[in-house]
Amino acid sequence: MNVSIVAGGAGFIGSNLLPHLVTEGRVVLVLDNLCRGKESYIAEMNSSSIYFRNTELSTVNETMSAFEYAKTLGQVDEIWHLAANSDIPAGVMDAHVDLNDTFMTTFALLEAMKSYGIGTMHFASSSAIYGDLGDVTLHESIGPLLPISNYGAMKLASEALISSAAEAYLGRANLFRFPNVVGVPATHGVILDFINKLASAPESLEVLGDGTQQKSYLHVSDLISAMLHIRQRNLENKVEVVNIGPIDTGVTVRWIANQVISRVSPSADIVFGIGNKGWVGDVPKFNYSTDLLQSYGWKPLLDSEAAVTQAVDEIAKQQGF
Amino acid sequence: MNVSIVAGGAGFIGSNLLPHLVTEGRVVLVLDNLCRGKESYIAEMNSSSIYFRNTELSTVNETMSAFEYAKTLGQVDEIWHLAANSDIPAGVMDAHVDLNDTFMTTFALLEAMKSYGIGTMHFASSSAIYGDLGDVTLHESIGPLLPISNYGAMKLASEALISSAAEAYLGRANLFRFPNVVGVPATHGVILDFINKLASAPESLEVLGDGTQQKSYLHVSDLISAMLHIRQRNLENKVEVVNIGPIDTGVTVRWIANQVISRVSPSADIVFGIGNKGWVGDVPKFNYSTDLLQSYGWKPLLDSEAAVTQAVDEIAKQQGF
Repeated sequence: MNVSIVAGGAGFIGSNLLPHLVTEGRVVLVLDNLCRGKESYIAEMNSSSIYFRNTELSTVNETMSAFEYAKTLGQVDEIWHLAANSDIPAGVMDAHVDLNDTFMTTFALLEAMKSYGIGTMHFASSSAIYGDLGDVTLHESIGPLLPISNYGAMKLASEALISSAAEAYLGRANLFRFPNVVGVPATHGVILDFINKLASAPESLEVLGDGTQQKSYLHVSDLISAMLHIRQRNLENKVEVVNIGPIDTGVTVRWIANQVISRVSPSADIVFGIGNKGWVGDVPKFNYSTDLLQSYGWKPLLDSEAAVTQAVDEIAKQQGF
Repeated sequence: MNVSIVAGGAGFIGSNLLPHLVTEGRVVLVLDNLCRGKESYIAEMNSSSIYFRNTELSTVNETMSAFEYAKTLGQVDEIWHLAANSDIPAGVMDAHVDLNDTFMTTFALLEAMKSYGIGTMHFASSSAIYGDLGDVTLHESIGPLLPISNYGAMKLASEALISSAAEAYLGRANLFRFPNVVGVPATHGVILDFINKLASAPESLEVLGDGTQQKSYLHVSDLISAMLHIRQRNLENKVEVVNIGPIDTGVTVRWIANQVISRVSPSADIVFGIGNKGWVGDVPKFNYSTDLLQSYGWKPLLDSEAAVTQAVDEIAKQQGF
């Protein structure tokens, strides 16, 4: 049996990916420390092909032990690395958060891949590696890369280490640069934040920043589809770097706030903050190019508006609205 | 008194930098674990303005203690971060080497700068962050950055973390991307390697790779001059990324080998290896753009040929030839 190890697989992205891997006839081993993911997401799938092991992936020893266990399940031939801190402001406050959860997980996984001779890495990188470049179109061939959050910095550090590992011992590495991704099970993010705020105070929604921050959003179903599309192609580069996102230029935080209010608490007022950054490390606007991804023959089913609209409804249901 | 902390200041670059800082009337505190640097390089300067403290900069605690001590010397207003592993093949063999010496030093220094409110960082980055891009001209605005050594990866990781710190609490960061730098006191590098080989076996010089690897070289005196030039300008960007190097396209390893032989052991034969990479992580050729640096009004005194020729003589003398 071919085995996929999915690091951080009990989280938002992972739990959407797993059913697709099972459908391919694979055995899946999920490694997660459950700091944000939930074992129940996996248990609900009720699949005998999915195994779970509680693992602190920021330590080489625990990661090595998990890989030793994986060998008993079959032939491990790919690693999906989705483990990371996902609370960007927390990582700005304390640099150790992204050092450990976003970067050292990469370090430990690569050490284990080297030891166990596993050649393929699919990595959840991020548009946050670009930093705040204003009106510059963010395509894969620009630089310099100047992230403005420790999260973005440690994603770029991870890309760099994977690239170096590809030179020395990996066979293939896909560096997927994620946009903002929406859907369920939502564990964090702007939509969940807004719904939670309205659940506790239904009359008023406080928005960080002036609401003009504009970003593109991809529905998680499209994200998984894009990654699987790239994975099955025989691309020329040993290290493939690709922006994943919708084709449109995105929606504003103000627009999202209005969508959430009309679904959850139509009579609420919005109270905006000052400035176009929600927090230190927030990128106020970006023009994210997905030309390369499109050139590989992939297009999303949902644009940013449709993705957010669908996700608002899904997350509202998840939260009992 | 204004105090400069020079991390890794007992090494090759640091010991060339220190006299310039002293000339400015500064107090200098050198922090170094002496794994490659030597306290004697500093002692020889016989300056009452230079202090030395043996410090393991990869740990936050030791680095914090050193900053606490620095306060007793005066007002610390800048950090020069020159500490790193400089044995690239060793870092490819064991990823912990560059993790600790090249990256965690950056992490710890930034933590200390945040705690002690020190706003200016001058960082010794590297052309190794670009990876092996073949004939592509390496200027600061290209991507993706795909380093092929852990050294290059951890330099890029350091750049990323400094960039993020600049968003949150630094006032100014210069990311100097070094080329190959030559001169004395030589602690490593191709010229010293060749001279050491000929010292033990004067009749034959074995060269890693086929000798066609072509790189540009800068003399350390020009490197220091370029950094000081950038440092004194009031540049617009909070984070300034600049390639430092000569204007020419460099010289081959074969040419360097011949220079060393004619200086040290004229009757020796050269035995070449196979392939155009000296080792895993070696970049066989690069076209390094210094257009940005030139646009800031700086030019080197020595081109690659002159820099290598002068350094061969200096290092030969250092080694007793």
